[in-house]
Formats: sequence, structure tokens, C-alpha cells
Amino acid sequence: MFESAELGHRIDKKTWKARLPALREALLEAQLDLLDKADTAVVVVIAGVEGAGKGETVNLFNEWMDPRHIVTEAFGPLTEEERQRPFMWRYWRALPPKGQVGILFGSWYSKPILSRVLDGCSAAELDLQVKRIRHFERMLARENVVLVKLWFHLSKSRQKKRLGKLAKNPDTAWRVSDNDWKLFKHFDEFAAVSEQVLRETSTGDAPWIVIDGSDHRYRSLTAGELLLGALQDRLARVTREASTAPAPLLDQPALDQRNVINQLDYSQSLPKKDYKVELARWQRELNLLSRDKRFRERNCVCVFEGNDAAGKGGTIRRITQALDARFYRVTPIAAPTEEERAQPYLWRFWRHLPRHGRFTLFDRSWYGRVLVERVEGLCSEHDWMRAYTEINEFEHQLVEHGTVLAKFWLAVTPEEQLKRFQAREETGYKRFKITEEDWRNRERWPDYEQAVCDMVDRTSTEYAPWTLVEANDKRHARIKVLRTLCETLENNL
Amino acid sequence: MFESAELGHRIDKKTWKARLPALREALLEAQLDLLDKADTAVVVVIAGVEGAGKGETVNLFNEWMDPRHIVTEAFGPLTEEERQRPFMWRYWRALPPKGQVGILFGSWYSKPILSRVLDGCSAAELDLQVKRIRHFERMLARENVVLVKLWFHLSKSRQKKRLGKLAKNPDTAWRVSDNDWKLFKHFDEFAAVSEQVLRETSTGDAPWIVIDGSDHRYRSLTAGELLLGALQDRLARVTREASTAPAPLLDQPALDQRNVINQLDYSQSLPKKDYKVELARWQRELNLLSRDKRFRERNCVCVFEGNDAAGKGGTIRRITQALDARFYRVTPIAAPTEEERAQPYLWRFWRHLPRHGRFTLFDRSWYGRVLVERVEGLCSEHDWMRAYTEINEFEHQLVEHGTVLAKFWLAVTPEEQLKRFQAREETGYKRFKITEEDWRNRERWPDYEQAVCDMVDRTSTEYAPWTLVEANDKRHARIKVLRTLCETLENNL
Repeated sequence: MFESAELGHRIDKKTWKARLPALREALLEAQLDLLDKADTAVVVVIAGVEGAGKGETVNLFNEWMDPRHIVTEAFGPLTEEERQRPFMWRYWRALPPKGQVGILFGSWYSKPILSRVLDGCSAAELDLQVKRIRHFERMLARENVVLVKLWFHLSKSRQKKRLGKLAKNPDTAWRVSDNDWKLFKHFDEFAAVSEQVLRETSTGDAPWIVIDGSDHRYRSLTAGELLLGALQDRLARVTREASTAPAPLLDQPALDQRNVINQLDYSQSLPKKDYKVELARWQRELNLLSRDKRFRERNCVCVFEGNDAAGKGGTIRRITQALDARFYRVTPIAAPTEEERAQPYLWRFWRHLPRHGRFTLFDRSWYGRVLVERVEGLCSEHDWMRAYTEINEFEHQLVEHGTVLAKFWLAVTPEEQLKRFQAREETGYKRFKITEEDWRNRERWPDYEQAVCDMVDRTSTEYAPWTLVEANDKRHARIKVLRTLCETLENNL
Repeated sequence: MFESAELGHRIDKKTWKARLPALREALLEAQLDLLDKADTAVVVVIAGVEGAGKGETVNLFNEWMDPRHIVTEAFGPLTEEERQRPFMWRYWRALPPKGQVGILFGSWYSKPILSRVLDGCSAAELDLQVKRIRHFERMLARENVVLVKLWFHLSKSRQKKRLGKLAKNPDTAWRVSDNDWKLFKHFDEFAAVSEQVLRETSTGDAPWIVIDGSDHRYRSLTAGELLLGALQDRLARVTREASTAPAPLLDQPALDQRNVINQLDYSQSLPKKDYKVELARWQRELNLLSRDKRFRERNCVCVFEGNDAAGKGGTIRRITQALDARFYRVTPIAAPTEEERAQPYLWRFWRHLPRHGRFTLFDRSWYGRVLVERVEGLCSEHDWMRAYTEINEFEHQLVEHGTVLAKFWLAVTPEEQLKRFQAREETGYKRFKITEEDWRNRERWPDYEQAVCDMVDRTSTEYAPWTLVEANDKRHARIKVLRTLCETLENNL
């Protein structure tokens, strides 16, 4: 994999001077066209061997293009904030918005490789990381992000020479740290692990480019022209490529019309007296769990979805009443903001993940894509079909990180919904809760029901199962949610 | 101050039931009107005595209004991220965008009062905090934020009874913590300090309202109607009030036409050979300082302003070449995003403040308001006039927190600028750097010069002085900036 990059490629000063102006002009033009189109972000991953010119390349890219539309991110040790979130959180936060170029110096590749070489991470763990990276990069590609991955290489002898030369000159000695020498001792292991990772993550969506870093002119011109090629290639496609994947099979209702939603027992109810006792019991239980020592290094994410007027708001309030206001947050999901629209779909949910010891209650959630967006045609079939996999992967990362995840679907029958809609229209202060849109959605009841059933089938996983809640009786629903949440916490702490 | 709130106000169930529906309906209507107008944010500060119904009121507000347009924030112990920023950082982050209601449970009032009672903070320190709060709230008022400050009070005997009653019932005992009893022991001191703080921060812009918390119906109805009144009052004003302040005196050029900009010695220059030596020397020095142990608990913010084509970008790159890419960030300031436009002016700069051990280099900055926005009439005279004070206050908080702050104005003569504009138009890859706007700005040279002189006069403070850099010779300018930055770091670590 690194053979070609050890040939000692060079180009002379004259060629450099002759080619540079045209490259810079073309790069700028491509960058500004990209900004105008504003439907594509570019992510440049800069990785490779110490001393092979990574930092210099980052500086050059910033010099060659308009730095106001470049976001450069370099990743140091994890901060406390980052440690309390899943591994990929810091990279989600670093993604550039559409129209911009993000240069990532160090990336999601650093830790897997370093851990494997230095910290005895197992081959199986490395495989999992690699699989996760492939998922992530495929998601980026489908979200219209151009991914350019540059690996700067030096042969072992050249790296040694380079470090030695820098260290000897008092003006440049500070550029070489003890850590650089420490890493150099493991050169061969790094080469082996890097090669494996590069091979396994060089996909059609996001191939690696290995660049010989020994000559600064060769390296810089190569990197610049590769970046230019990637930009021009994207710009040449008039618009986002229509998916070439076969149209997904539309999920069909079962032949006997039975499904997980219409088979619920909606007659379940709870008398007021019992409700009061149960409410006090489960709120106390929940409060104790939230202050449990074991919860200090964990956190909890609850997802509330349900039919319109199924009682999500009232249920959420019964939970928050039991929690200390400093340690929970209710996040209602409405239309995305400008910043959010300029990012991949799941970005807006990553940004709300809680730190340790906290609860986040999502009032509607990332499932919008496979519910309202699917039914109302707000995204393409291809987009909502791939969302199932992306959501499962997202939730897996949460749970693996130690998040207790509880997902509730509050279901009412069409008859009960009608009663509630009518009651809302009659009560002044409830009128805001009922809009034309609610009546319109109601007309599409069968489509929504199908979408809910598919959602449950495809995203109720062992690590993050759905709880379906019969909500015709509000008291029954609230207690079922509280009890389930307490049990989920108890089982997972 | 608390006399009226110890009378034991009550209202009966019948009155409550009669008035509640109209209140809820009116609140909702006002909230949605506010959202439609989208030029005002509402901040509700909920403070007061434990057990006086603060949490219940937060819940009620969320129930009475549409919670999708409410942001509730409660403040616990400082996180690591927050500890590494000035005290007000967490509150800036919590401000609601225009159109939304922010409910702050605990606020910038908690710490000053607690510290004075429990941690022996001096009277002088408390005075400083109070002054800062007044500044902050005045800024909010001028930024069109409606501030409603509610203080929930209980007499000493009522608080004792309340805590005792909750603690006795096993279903509610968890609501009373050891800390509540600990704070209760200091009831009288809290009452005295709170009274002082409330008195000194009850301004025309943001008066305090003290509410008797002993009866839940009285308390809730009072709080709700006060909030409603504040919303309706704002909505009744057709648009943002024109400033009633007298038009500021326009700064006039000095009679002899001499000013800090035209008196610079633009003939200073540095030969290439000396430049190379000096560059290596100061970059090494800067690198050593950035890795100095003393810097680990500090950070550095650099501001770069200057004439168009004065060489800001090239100068910034000479600094970043000396720094580890993981520990600096260049933040170019362009037009604000949608999220930023929905917030007070300085919000977008607060969000970029670095953590400990980091550098943030602002390529243009918060000074835009008193430069381009002033000259081009992009904000009102009143807005840019108040910006001087707000900026000084902002920078004071930075420096007090331990930030090393360096501000550079890169100055070229009109003749030199013309040469550079022409050169840019001739070089393909530099052409993007020169736009119609640059030529237009150039025509207003005297206005910009006056704005720069005023800026220097009004914001070059002892704790954050401006460095004026003669930049006709790029080498001279770069070395002067590097040297000044190193010296500023050295003097302040």
C-alpha cells in the first residue's frame, strides 16, 4: 500500500512555479462555486506519519483557498465534555456546514490506530471501529458530503532523518516532541496497522490517497491537485445524484390486517385512586434512580413519539416532576434551523446528547424522518430507507457508551383522537394544540400506521426496544411509561 | 422589601377556577404573537427561597404555554467547560433566540448571593458582581429582550413548616435534601443579602417582582399574570422603541488633523535577511510560551483588524505556523448566521471563547460594530455608541478570567492600499480577495479613519490596549505583531 509512496517522488522548483498559479486559481474558483451552490460540504481528512508534511499542507490549503469558508479542526486529548459522550460526538460537532470546506487534522482514524498499537486494543475491537467508520463515511456520502482522505507517508529511514534534522537546529528543535520519538519506535507496527485500516476503509464512496511526503513541492502539488479534482468532480454533476439504488420494496400491510398497533388492548385503564398511589410510587422510584451513585457515570435519553393528541406532553411532565430541574432537559423537535439544515440529518440530535448524570427527553425525535417525512414525502424514499440503519447505528453508539435509552410510542385509536381534537377546539387555551395540519394528518391514518409498524419492526432492537403504550386512558399511559422507564433504568445501571 | 410577601396572601379555589382559563388563553396568544413578530426574546428569571414554589411555577409555565417555544434552563454546579470560561459564559449560552421564551431556574444571581453568605465573598466583590449584572441586564434591554425577574418568598417560619411537612411524608421526603436544611440555617443572612442584591438590581429596565409563595394558587396566578402583562406590554409597542437617548456627539477630527493613524511612521521596514532571523526567533519564543506550564490554566485571544489588504491573513499564518494545530483556532468573522442574528450582538463572540491552554485568533471581530457597521449605517447610532461600553465590559471579563488579550490594527496608507488592490487584480489566484466592496470602502477612507481613531480612543484600555501596526512593509508588520504577542504573553503569564 505504501510502496509507491516510498519512491522518493520529487518535482523541481521550475515545475512548481509554473504550475502553482493555475492550481491556486482553479482551487479558489472551485471553492467559491461550491459556496454558491451551497448543497455540498467537503471534508478533507489529513492523516499519516509525523514529519510527512501534514501541518504544512493544512497551512497551504488555508493559504490557497479563501480561509473564511474553511473550518480547520485539530483534535487533541479528549475534553471532559467529549469523554462524556460517544466517541464520534466530537467529529459530528466538527462537520462543516454545506458550502464550506472542513479540514480535519487528525480524525476518527487516530484513536483506533493508536489504541491498537499502543494500548493493546484487540483485533475484534479494531474491526468494530472500522465497521463504524465505514457506516459513518457512507452516511456522509449519502448526505452529499465530499470526503477526501489524504495519507502522508514517509519511509522509516526518511522519517528518522527528518526528525533528526529538525531536532538538531535550535530554531526548529521545538517542532519535535518526545512523543514523536516515542511513536517512531513503533514505526513498523504503525505501518502494519495503518495499512490494514486504510485498506478496509478505502471504499468507493471514500477512497484513501497515499502521498509521498518526502519532497514538499511534490507533496503539496499532489495534495492540491487531488483536492481540486474532487471539487471539480462534484461540481460537474449538475445536482445531487438521483439514487441509483433500486427502489426499496414498499412495506405492505399483513394479509390479515393485524399489526402491532391495531392489536394493542386499548381498553386498559386505571382508576383515579390507584393512579394517585402509583404516580407517587413511581415518581419516588424515578427520583431515587436519578440520584443513584451508579447513574453518575451514565445518562438517560427518552424518546417520545405518538399519535397527535396521544398525551406526550402530559406524560413528559409526570416524569420531569420527579427530576431535579438542573439535571434534565426537554428537547422538542420542530423544524430544523438554518445551521441544522446545512448538516447531515442526525447532526441536530447529536448536538443535544446529555452529559453524565443527565436526562434528555425528546418530544418527537430522529424518528421524524421515518414517520412524518416519509408519509408527507418531505424526503426521498432512499433517504428514509437508509435512516433505519443510520438510526440503529446511532442508538447502538449511545447504548455502548452507557446511555440508558427508552423509546415510547403513545398510541390512541382514531375514535379517541377525534374526541380529543374536538375537546381541544372547545377549550380556549387548548386551541393552539390543534391545527389544520392535525386534521390533515388524521386523514392519512393508514399511512401513518404503516410507517409506525415499519419503524417498530426495523428499529426495535435488543439494545433499544420500543415500548408501545396504549394511551386511550391517560392515567394508564402515564403509569406504564413511568414504570417502564424505572425498570429500564434499574436493569441497565 | 419582603414585607408584603409575608402577609400570607391567598386566593380561593373558586377564583382560581374562574380566572385560570382566560389567563392561559391570553398567555398562549401573547406567546404566539411574540413568535410571529420574532424580534423579541423573553427571559424569565425564577429565583427565591427553597420551597416557595419555584419549580412548580416553571412546570406551570411550561404547561400553560406552548413548550416547543420555551427553553428552560436550570443551572447546577459548573462543568469543566464552564469553569474554563468567564462566569457569564454559561448564561450567554442559555439566552433564548428571538421569538422564544427562556425560563432560567437559578441565574446569574445565585452565585453572588451564595458566595456572600457562605464563602466569605467581600462586600466589594459583591458590589462588582452587582455592577456587572446591571450592565448585562441593560444590554439585554437594549437588545430588545424582555426581562421578567420573579422572586418567590416565604417567611422563615413558613419555610420551616414547608420543609418539615415534605420531609415527614415518605412519598415526598426525597424532595427535601440535606442541603435545603443547611441553607435554612442561614435564612436571616440570605434574607439580608438577597434584599440588598434585589434592591440594587431593581432597575427601570428590569425590576424585580417579589411574590408571596405560601399559597400555590395565589403564587401561580400572580406569576402568570405578571408574565402576561410583560408580554402584552411589549406586544403593544408596535416596533422597537426608537432610542430616547440624546443623539451622541459625533466625534470630530482634531483641529490640526493629526490623529493616531496618520501620525504612524509608515516608512519602517525590515530587510529580508533580518526578517528571516527575527521570524525564526519569535516563532520559537511563541511556541515555548504556548507550551509554558503557566499557560495551561490560561488562554489567549488575538483580535486582528485593519485596512483592506493590510495583510491580516499573512500575519495570522505566521502566528499559526508556530502553534500546535490542536491548540489554536482561527475564527474569521463574516455575516452572522440565522442563529446568531436571533441573539444579542456579542453572543456570537462569546460562543467562540477558547478553553484553557488554547489560542483563538479572530480575523475581524466584535469591533465590526464600531467600524463597518457604523460607517455603512448597518446599525443605529445608538447601537454602535453603546457598543464601546459593552465591548470594554466584555474584554474586562475576559482579562479578569485570565485570558491574555492582544488587539492589532494593521494600518496601510491609501497609496499602499491602491498598489495592493491593483496587484491583486492582476494575479489570478488573488483576484478573489478584491471585490467591488473593497473599492467602495476605499472611497470612504476618511470615515473609516475617524471610526478607527474613535475605536482606539474608546477601547484601548489598560487591561486591553490596542497595538497599531504600520503595515506598509509586510515584514515589519509581521515581526511587530509576533514580538508584541510574545511580550504580552510574557508580561501576563
